[in-house]
Amino acid sequence: MAYTPIKQVFRNTQEFLNKTVKVAGWVRTIRDSKNFGFIEINDGSFFKNLQIVFEDGKIPNFKEITKLTVGSAIVVEGTLVESPGAKQPFEVQASKIELEGACPQDYPLQKKRHSFEFLRTIAHLRPRTNTFSAVFRVRSLAAMAIHQFFQDRGFVYVHTPIITGSDAEGAGEMFKVTTFDFDNIPKDEKGNVDYTQDFFGRSTNLTVSGQLAGETYAQAFGKIYTFGPTFRAENSNTARHAAEFWMIEPEIAFADLKDDMELAEDMLKYIINYVMENAPEEMEFFNNFIDKTLLERLNNVVSSDFAHITYTEAISILEKEKDQFEYPVKWGSDLQTEHERYLTEKVFKKPLFVTDYPKDIKAFYMRLNDDNKTVAAMDLLVPGVGEIIGGSQREERYDYLLNRMKELGLKEEDYWWYLDLRKYGSTKHAGFGLGFERAIMYMTGISNIRDVISFPRTTKSAEF
Amino acid sequence: MAYTPIKQVFRNTQEFLNKTVKVAGWVRTIRDSKNFGFIEINDGSFFKNLQIVFEDGKIPNFKEITKLTVGSAIVVEGTLVESPGAKQPFEVQASKIELEGACPQDYPLQKKRHSFEFLRTIAHLRPRTNTFSAVFRVRSLAAMAIHQFFQDRGFVYVHTPIITGSDAEGAGEMFKVTTFDFDNIPKDEKGNVDYTQDFFGRSTNLTVSGQLAGETYAQAFGKIYTFGPTFRAENSNTARHAAEFWMIEPEIAFADLKDDMELAEDMLKYIINYVMENAPEEMEFFNNFIDKTLLERLNNVVSSDFAHITYTEAISILEKEKDQFEYPVKWGSDLQTEHERYLTEKVFKKPLFVTDYPKDIKAFYMRLNDDNKTVAAMDLLVPGVGEIIGGSQREERYDYLLNRMKELGLKEEDYWWYLDLRKYGSTKHAGFGLGFERAIMYMTGISNIRDVISFPRTTKSAEF
Repeated sequence: MAYTPIKQVFRNTQEFLNKTVKVAGWVRTIRDSKNFGFIEINDGSFFKNLQIVFEDGKIPNFKEITKLTVGSAIVVEGTLVESPGAKQPFEVQASKIELEGACPQDYPLQKKRHSFEFLRTIAHLRPRTNTFSAVFRVRSLAAMAIHQFFQDRGFVYVHTPIITGSDAEGAGEMFKVTTFDFDNIPKDEKGNVDYTQDFFGRSTNLTVSGQLAGETYAQAFGKIYTFGPTFRAENSNTARHAAEFWMIEPEIAFADLKDDMELAEDMLKYIINYVMENAPEEMEFFNNFIDKTLLERLNNVVSSDFAHITYTEAISILEKEKDQFEYPVKWGSDLQTEHERYLTEKVFKKPLFVTDYPKDIKAFYMRLNDDNKTVAAMDLLVPGVGEIIGGSQREERYDYLLNRMKELGLKEEDYWWYLDLRKYGSTKHAGFGLGFERAIMYMTGISNIRDVISFPRTTKSAEF
Repeated sequence: MAYTPIKQVFRNTQEFLNKTVKVAGWVRTIRDSKNFGFIEINDGSFFKNLQIVFEDGKIPNFKEITKLTVGSAIVVEGTLVESPGAKQPFEVQASKIELEGACPQDYPLQKKRHSFEFLRTIAHLRPRTNTFSAVFRVRSLAAMAIHQFFQDRGFVYVHTPIITGSDAEGAGEMFKVTTFDFDNIPKDEKGNVDYTQDFFGRSTNLTVSGQLAGETYAQAFGKIYTFGPTFRAENSNTARHAAEFWMIEPEIAFADLKDDMELAEDMLKYIINYVMENAPEEMEFFNNFIDKTLLERLNNVVSSDFAHITYTEAISILEKEKDQFEYPVKWGSDLQTEHERYLTEKVFKKPLFVTDYPKDIKAFYMRLNDDNKTVAAMDLLVPGVGEIIGGSQREERYDYLLNRMKELGLKEEDYWWYLDLRKYGSTKHAGFGLGFERAIMYMTGISNIRDVISFPRTTKSAEF
């Protein structure tokens, strides 16, 4: 690949000016007059297109090139020169243009606006559009930002299992994983499904969270994070739910809820800053065409000190405004998105941690507070979305954890290894989960989760 | 967490010397005399332990501390001083030691050698041992090296789907994903399984490769990579096969097999260099205790120009030595590990690309060579292992690809989107796959794949 990425031409223009460059990419637009024409090509290295000028007599195949169609793959040699046009500062005067792959007229991505719904039906082609090129470049950068953030701080990246023998990670409905022949499910003598004959010799599911496994590694490495796919078999046909999505779950030992919130705040600011620095063209595009308040909102996040209130305080604020809400506000009920957004957008006007939720609306592993009613949980609420991160200090006391499991009817033998962590050198520890797609939606303004996943899997849909 | 990571104490000793430090970790060893004692603690930030000296009179709870057991979690305050002992250059003179979490005597990790087989039964505790602390820190660093390598070169990271509607990615047996009740599988009027009633409205499986989806993104971004879990439902109960493992699959557009091999060589050298630079203590440990030829072997890889021969040349070399091999050598048969190792260890004595394999032993998407018999495939063979990377130039010509699919009985309608890539702006392109666990085994000398995966999933085993 002796081709120069178009990004380099844009970022280091002086280096290439008045020199020969060789680029390769796909035709985004083409227009021509009698003796000359213009092609904009995009090679995927950069959000913007590079303009190519071709003239009769200066390239041997002028006629052929005028017939090029949008979507064709071409290789271009020429000189990078300053452009007389106002629209772009430079262009390539072609000395050679070769067609690498033609594109017939039935190419679905002609130069016009397509609806996001339509583009989902051609998910294999949509990254060739401006919007999805920007979305998936930002997604890639955000993933890198996450790794960089944690690795710089000495966290160990753990691949927790995707296939799990547990059916009780406590975070939602699970998919089954099997090699059974559905025409012939083996049964034991009592007529029950005989899982000993399945691939793993037991019933297995797709993970809903890497947290419990992650905690085992935090008790060895001190600071760990997971970043992998998780699954929910829930029939939620909404713009915010997918059956398959990626999650980031850090866990820190010798740490409490305060440390956990500091980590979440630092991480979120880091990711946003990283993306704004590394994808300024994409972010400007989103701000212009997807959500005109995007950059203002994100700049507010990175420059704010996040606020903190307890759930109990939140309820008393909301009760004063209860007429504004569709759902009732009452101590003991979970906050709805309308409540969350009211708090972060109207009351605090910046990101807000709500802490110490009633134990009955939170998971079994969260640390019981001294009031015996609330747990050391935290949700981070951000303007425009509501909850984006959920976490807690974990119950590190063996007896408390076991009691809580019994209250909820969880079986001790299913969690023997999780309980072991509280038996052998237990530490105060904490962690949280960030849904990666929710974070991408937040940073791009894209409002449907199907538009930030390459090939989304949702209820009744697993195309491609 | 106002605790200083022990790694910082080791790496920037001068900064901490004769100052107060506060550290937190787990007791690895403890011994005491009448009036003083020594504790080695490890906090997971670093491979090595920090020595703590405690003296009666200098800490208030001397008696209690002498009774500490291995595995306990403690918090220590004290002064970092140069050590009179020969074994370590510095130690902490404790002024305060607090027990955070005790560890009873039945703790399975007492100070003695445990077999890897035993440690697999306590996979939740084994990262607390030297060997597994080193393995999983190296695994984390290698993952970061991969992201750094590709992102520095402008590759876009793509999360290809884990749940796939395709049952024909062509790389192996698949697991089914379902929400069916196994006691009541829905059937249609003909008595066939009615997948329209399953969660996705169709039959779905766990992916065996992200390649085909990855290619769609390479045709938009030019250079992409995947790094995610993949699955094989194969009953291979060997030291080298797992049902769930992670794979890295880059794809490059406007590129041929030569570009592909350059990329693979650069990537492998980069990862090895990164790990050797960032985990010198771990690598020295592996070299001393796991595989005494490890560093020599890895240094040979990073300093060699990899060799290249065709499959046909490889066969004629091997035929001359056929008496040495258990499996027959014949043009048209796949190379066995013994053949691969002979070529890279005995003949070339360095990493070796073997190219242009017979089309009948390679996948349908590999580009047909002009001889009509071989395809533009490459396997990278390395000393000590054999094949570590497999890749190819992809068939970019619509007619050739369709013909090959028909020859092999693949259905056109299952691949409509894959074929579209050859219809709309097709480019020469190539890619490869690196099994992440195989790479970790290669870099650590660990010989069983179960020992480089946090919670391994293999035939009849999905514990934890």
